[in-house]
This record gives sequence, C-alpha cells and structure tokens, in this order.
Amino acid sequence: MLLRDEFEFIKSISPTKTNRTDLVQGIGDDAALVRGSSELEDIICMDTMAEGVHFKKETMSPYHTGYKALASNISDIAAMGGDPSFYLVSVAIPKEGWTEEELSELYRGMAELSESYKMDLIGGDTVSTSGGLVVTVTVMGKVKRGRHLLRENARDGDVVFVTGPLGGSAAGLQLLLEKEIGYPFNPEEKKLVDAHQMPQPRVDAGRILAKTNARVALNDISDGIASEANEIAEASELTIELEYENIPKYDGHASFSVEEQKSHVLYGGEDYELVGTISADKWDDLVEAFKEQELAVYRVGNATRGKPGVILKHGNQTGMLGKTGFNHFSK
Amino acid sequence: MLLRDEFEFIKSISPTKTNRTDLVQGIGDDAALVRGSSELEDIICMDTMAEGVHFKKETMSPYHTGYKALASNISDIAAMGGDPSFYLVSVAIPKEGWTEEELSELYRGMAELSESYKMDLIGGDTVSTSGGLVVTVTVMGKVKRGRHLLRENARDGDVVFVTGPLGGSAAGLQLLLEKEIGYPFNPEEKKLVDAHQMPQPRVDAGRILAKTNARVALNDISDGIASEANEIAEASELTIELEYENIPKYDGHASFSVEEQKSHVLYGGEDYELVGTISADKWDDLVEAFKEQELAVYRVGNATRGKPGVILKHGNQTGMLGKTGFNHFSK
Repeated sequence: MLLRDEFEFIKSISPTKTNRTDLVQGIGDDAALVRGSSELEDIICMDTMAEGVHFKKETMSPYHTGYKALASNISDIAAMGGDPSFYLVSVAIPKEGWTEEELSELYRGMAELSESYKMDLIGGDTVSTSGGLVVTVTVMGKVKRGRHLLRENARDGDVVFVTGPLGGSAAGLQLLLEKEIGYPFNPEEKKLVDAHQMPQPRVDAGRILAKTNARVALNDISDGIASEANEIAEASELTIELEYENIPKYDGHASFSVEEQKSHVLYGGEDYELVGTISADKWDDLVEAFKEQELAVYRVGNATRGKPGVILKHGNQTGMLGKTGFNHFSK
Repeated sequence: MLLRDEFEFIKSISPTKTNRTDLVQGIGDDAALVRGSSELEDIICMDTMAEGVHFKKETMSPYHTGYKALASNISDIAAMGGDPSFYLVSVAIPKEGWTEEELSELYRGMAELSESYKMDLIGGDTVSTSGGLVVTVTVMGKVKRGRHLLRENARDGDVVFVTGPLGGSAAGLQLLLEKEIGYPFNPEEKKLVDAHQMPQPRVDAGRILAKTNARVALNDISDGIASEANEIAEASELTIELEYENIPKYDGHASFSVEEQKSHVLYGGEDYELVGTISADKWDDLVEAFKEQELAVYRVGNATRGKPGVILKHGNQTGMLGKTGFNHFSK
C-alpha cells in the first residue's frame, strides 16, 4: 500500500490531547521531551512483531495486531514493577495487502489500550517495505527509584508464583487456526481467543509487587513459563521447582487433550501473566495485598539451592523442564 | 537468513561494558532502567530505515547502514539541543540475502558511532521478515531542563543559520549510483560519498546552541533545507528568506551541473546539519561561541513577519521555496 498522503495519515493517528503532565513536547518536533524526576527510574523496552512470523491476518485483525504489539511492551514494563507512560510506533508498510483503513485500525488498537493506562503516543515513523508488515513499539515507563524488580532477585526458600491462568493464548491460537477469525466461539472458547488477540498486561500486579518493598524476582510470560522460569533460575543461580497441577488454567482448556494442554501451559507464551518469587515469610502478606485489589496470585512452586534450572512435578512424573522441552528423570 | 543461534548472536552484539553512570540495568532483563534527574529532560525519538527504500547494498555497506540508522536518530537529539545517551535497535531480518557477518557489521556501524558519544545499547529485538531488512532505532538523550530547542522558537528579525555545507549526501549518492561502491573516488568526491554513508550528527553544534541560553529555533536537515526551513516557518508562523549563494557547499560539488547542485543543496536531505534561527543581536556572540570550539556557523537568511513559508533568492531570481519545489514569483 502507498499512503495517499503520509502527512495526512500521520495527522490522523496523532493524538489530539495528551494525558501526562510530565510530557513537555509530544509529536511535532524532531523528538519528544519528557521532564525527568530524581525520585524515579525510567524503564524502556522495544519489541517488534512481523507479519507471517508473529501474526497473520487469518488469526489477528489489524486492531488486535496493534493492541497486542503495544501489550507485549507494556508487559515488559509491568515485569519491572513499573507504570507505562509513553510509547513510540514504527510501522513498515507492505506495498500490497494493507489498506489505509486497516492501518488506522492497527493504530486504534494501540490507542485504545494506551488510553486505559493514560499513556501518550509521542513519536515514531512510517516507511514502506517490500515484505510483510513490521511493527516496532518502544514503551517507556516509570518506577520508584530502587523499587524495580529484576529476575536475579530469587533466593533459596522463595515461593514461586504466577498472577493468572496460563496457556490461554496458545489455546486461543489453536482454536483460531482450526476454525476462523469470525467463528461464533462459545463463551469459554472466546476467553481463550481473547487471551490470544487482546492479552492484558499485568501492570496492576506488577504495581502491587513493587509496592511490597519486599525482594521480588519477576518476569513476564511472553515465551511460556518453561522459558521464563529458567531465566529466573539462571539469573538467580538456583533451582526452581514447579508443580504442574498448581498452575492455574482456563476453564475452556478442559476440552483440549492433556498433551495439548501441557504444551499450551508450559511453552505457549504470549500470556503476559507474571511469574516471580518472594520469600516464604512474605507470601501471606502478598496474597492479602492482591486480595485488597480484588486480584489473585497463585503459588506454583519453590526456589531451592541447586544447579540453575527448572524441575517440573506432575503427578508421579518429575523431570527437568527445559526452555522448550521436558526430560523425565530416569529412575 | 536464519540466525544459526539467535541467543548467541544477541550475545555477540551485546556490549561487554557500559559507559554511563545513570544506567541501572542494561540488556538482560525485561526492560532497561535509567536513573532519572529532576534537572534534566529526557529526549526520545525513533526512526526506521528500510532496504530498497532508504538504502541499498549497491550504495551502502551493512556497516554504513547501521552507522547511518543511528546517526539519523542522534541528529534528532542534536536538533533539540541535547546529548545522546542510550539506544535500542530492532532489526527485521530477510529470510535471504543477508549473512550473519553482514548483520554483525550493521551492529558494528552503530557501536562505533555510539562509542564516540559514550552511548550505551540497552535493548531491542531481532525478528525475521519476508521482505527487505528493516532497522528501527530508538535513541534517548538528555537536555538541561528548559533548555531544549523547538522549531516554533523563531521570531521576526531572526538570523537564519546552518551549521555546515549542504547537498553532500545527495551528491555522494549520485556518485555512488553513477560509479559503484568500491570505486576509487578522488578526495573531493570521497567527502561527498562519506557525507552520504557516514553522516556526522551535529551534537557539538546543538550543544553550543543549547548553552547560549538564547531563544533558538532548530531543526536537523534530514529532508533538505527546503523542507526543514518550511517546518520552522510553519511552526513559528513567519516567513523565512534564504539566500542560495550564502548556503555553504562542498568543494566537490562544483563538478555537478548547476541544476544538480541546486537539487542536492535544497532538497537532498540526509545532510544532518542543523538549520535554525537566533535573534540578530545574538548572532555575533553565537559565531564567537562556535569559533571557541573551532567550529563554523553560516548565516543564510532572515526570518520576517509574513505568511508561513520560505522565499529563496538566487541571483536575480526570487520565488517561493516549497518543501519539494521552487516557484518563481511572476513579475
């Protein structure tokens, strides 16, 4: 697609109002300006989604593609215990296959999600490309100085937790591939499809965790808990033990085979729930703090001294959970 | 190209040391962390270069492509009067046509330029794409609170200046298209080719301008002075008069036809010099401040009351200089 008028298009997707009082200059000059604060740390991340690799029109509308591209970045801010503040968007637009309306929908998906966090769009770029659409998002966030949450913070004896059910996004994708994007899914299936198309980054949970003033290790589950738990284990140099049965799942998941369920829950990724650890004596307080916000947090395992890695227990089975596969312990 | 091992590749391009003391957490967690300061404003920008649109291997080596992708973003920081501090890089890698060595060269081009500003690489992404290579760079910078330089700052009576010769990049590209990338260019031609392949963002000049504590309007010349001067005129709601003969040019430019020269100088872009305005009574001090740093600044016109737009004078000719073309005044 060639934009009829790039200037007009950029105008159409530029915000007409701004939310944040620390924004000095948004879109319209060479760069954006944000007032700094000595009490805060800036958080910054950048993620790219490419058509045909991370999304296809068969399973993701342009609106959902935009929504998810921003959500995955906000999730990285949440995983540091921060609040998202600003975002920048660069889109490489294919010469064919995308209409200007679809491109507007992509930006609308981002704008609607950003509004629920009172974020502002402050910059970006639009270019054309010979291949599929490539959307790159940069998100900035803020966290109180010293209160950021790193994956290296886990210690022997910690409780391992997750902030919500896993495997929904992968199950939803499977449904979308088996049926189609407009299929009349039942309510349970719809939740899985929504988990794939409109994942909710857990800024609320990250905020509670940063406010506890406890030592918390934290990752967002973008690549499946198998991968993310291993990253915490490696960064913190200890062993993480997970109990498969304690991992919360979606109700709609019961209609999948046990093997499919396990694959979705352990390796699926793109759930954007948080996985973390906190010392056992702070666990009850944490559950209470979540309850006060009408949220749940689920104990799924423990951190113990040992070789960096993840042990998974499921019924009688125990083995090493690698980033992409499971190996039974030989007896 | 498929990376043999994405993890290993990312490790190979990740910095082994960091430069900046305000960096709390670089690559290696969900996001980067930077300590804030109430005395500073954060500057942030994002630019994308796409293969076949912004660069081709016939005229730009992978090293130069990386160099220029970062330079264009640093230039936006300079145009706000700031110092660049951090950068993030996302590369969408074609399935064919790029080797891992070429990709390393792309990152090396950025790393070498960033080192001259003591910047740190703090994040990004690598994905694959069905089309040409797409590289998106986000750069952060800092400027003293309230000392940023906006294009809306020009006033009636201001002197219009540029920080160096224009048209070099466009002339260099023409040479590269006429000859080839390995051609033994003579020293004057080489300067033009360098202006295209390795443009030097004018952080030094922006820094002087921010330090003057004068009201300065400023733009970087990424799209040609015709376009950039019009942006200042529109943002400041006044007329800018430019004297073509006062615009500094490269020595090597003399071998091009007069029409080619004018096209390069006025519309060429990618020179990454700065164009700005300052009140006439501060002009001599500004020249002096540049001299102290062994730099030059060139008076090329004036800002006057009038309809937003740019008037170009060249010998006996006078007319309106639009963003992409010139219209003689009818007599």
